[in-house]
Amino acid sequence: MSPEILRSWNDGATKRAIIGFVNESTTAGSPRFIREAERIAAFDNDGTLWVEQPIPAQGPFLFDKLMKRVDKDPTLATKLPYRAIINHDEGFIHAIARQQPEAIQSLVEAVGDAFEGTPAEVFDNAVREYLDTHQHERYGKPYTELIYQPMRELFELLRAHDWRVFICSGGGRDFMRVFAEDLWGIYKENVIGSAPVVEYRDGRMVRSSKVYGRLSIGPGKPEDIYARTGRVARFVGGNGDDDQQMLELADFPLVIVHDDDQREYAYTVGAEALLPAADRGGWTMVSMKNDWKTIFEGRRP
Amino acid sequence: MSPEILRSWNDGATKRAIIGFVNESTTAGSPRFIREAERIAAFDNDGTLWVEQPIPAQGPFLFDKLMKRVDKDPTLATKLPYRAIINHDEGFIHAIARQQPEAIQSLVEAVGDAFEGTPAEVFDNAVREYLDTHQHERYGKPYTELIYQPMRELFELLRAHDWRVFICSGGGRDFMRVFAEDLWGIYKENVIGSAPVVEYRDGRMVRSSKVYGRLSIGPGKPEDIYARTGRVARFVGGNGDDDQQMLELADFPLVIVHDDDQREYAYTVGAEALLPAADRGGWTMVSMKNDWKTIFEGRRP
Repeated sequence: MSPEILRSWNDGATKRAIIGFVNESTTAGSPRFIREAERIAAFDNDGTLWVEQPIPAQGPFLFDKLMKRVDKDPTLATKLPYRAIINHDEGFIHAIARQQPEAIQSLVEAVGDAFEGTPAEVFDNAVREYLDTHQHERYGKPYTELIYQPMRELFELLRAHDWRVFICSGGGRDFMRVFAEDLWGIYKENVIGSAPVVEYRDGRMVRSSKVYGRLSIGPGKPEDIYARTGRVARFVGGNGDDDQQMLELADFPLVIVHDDDQREYAYTVGAEALLPAADRGGWTMVSMKNDWKTIFEGRRP
Repeated sequence: MSPEILRSWNDGATKRAIIGFVNESTTAGSPRFIREAERIAAFDNDGTLWVEQPIPAQGPFLFDKLMKRVDKDPTLATKLPYRAIINHDEGFIHAIARQQPEAIQSLVEAVGDAFEGTPAEVFDNAVREYLDTHQHERYGKPYTELIYQPMRELFELLRAHDWRVFICSGGGRDFMRVFAEDLWGIYKENVIGSAPVVEYRDGRMVRSSKVYGRLSIGPGKPEDIYARTGRVARFVGGNGDDDQQMLELADFPLVIVHDDDQREYAYTVGAEALLPAADRGGWTMVSMKNDWKTIFEGRRP
């Protein structure tokens, strides 16, 4: 094995399992061989490819936008999700992470209304400006410098074996598309996620307040992957309960376990169902603490 | 110019315009240069990539399925679209081609109901069997042998210049995905089109009766391309009124004109608005009669 392959991963069972599967998947005659057309790999974003604690990158971006609405219409302040944002209500963030339907619905509606009528390029510029200027409260760096280097190397390994890598996130598709090409080397078209219907109005692409299909959480993930690719993803990475269904369908389910409170965070919130289910066997559990030599490279790629 | 490039195209202004644009689009410093990430090409399917007369390939497939419903429930025979199918009502086919909302709505609902609950792989097998056994009434060959060879060569030229080729059709996405890889060398994920919501039920992907987003016709085409790729297509090929919006947004709009009643068909139905608009200038009009040396290669690739 070349020393360059998965160089930020410690040697051990996890690294061997990944490399073993990827090699077998491309070896004709192997029982785990997968023909090229079927080599779809899909990864959750927040907490799987970059830091999601204490709040996913998209949180402050959306909350700022929602607070501007409260400035204009103070009566909103008593309603969800505005009230929760104003009160820094951690329970609300956890309710979102736990896919609590009312919490999600209130956020989706508010975000849909807030961006209704925004031309796509205006939205993209706002995301870009936010990512360039907003710093993570603990690390004092933009979120774009807080991506997991070991996962970048996994993408390299997969691509070198003609796997096509997709991101499938409960977070906003169009938010992620702004940085996926630079950060992950993934074309926008390989980014799947919750999204509004973007309408063609007077020659421009403009965001509507309607959700496109359904949110990319839980069963919505394999559904979005199927809608997008016509296939089930055979290699899947995730870290939360909302990744469980796409993980179940994979030949190689990989779960990122957040157990490193020194270099990153140690938490199980939002993964209460996934971790025990995955531990039953056959899934590859990645201990950030033990399996990753380096987490961040500390610079933007 | 290599004699192999667009070898089924006659020399002339059309061929020169295509090759000129493709070369310029990949030449840094050219006013028509397009950076690699932006090189999205999108093509309509029926009438642009293969024969759509006297009825698109999907027609008999769907009609057979709908007639089985009438066998079970004869009261349907008096309703649209069943009545039109039973009466071989050409006006109904033209109403569909002309995007007449009631005609389309009746067909979409009937098709949605007919396939509700069908597992994705069962649907795919039915399409495969149909394409293998159904012959085109004039040519006596499967539709899969009636693809336009010049368009295959155009795909080759685009791919050789790092353009990513998508199909965006008003017809069923999942119908086309069954043959796109073999016939066009396009992975399923690059096939966009009208589609149902395919749901994750008990570990399987199953067709629902609901439409995913909106139909991929008219403004639905740039919307579907944007939803799928995060971009506008810069090279676009089409032949009907329902392609007009995606053509308008392209740097290089290409229109297939059906003017060859000897080798194919001569007709303007479904393109009554597009042809005059496109003729105003700046669009590349392909005369099948004059620009194409060969239309069919007469065998499956």
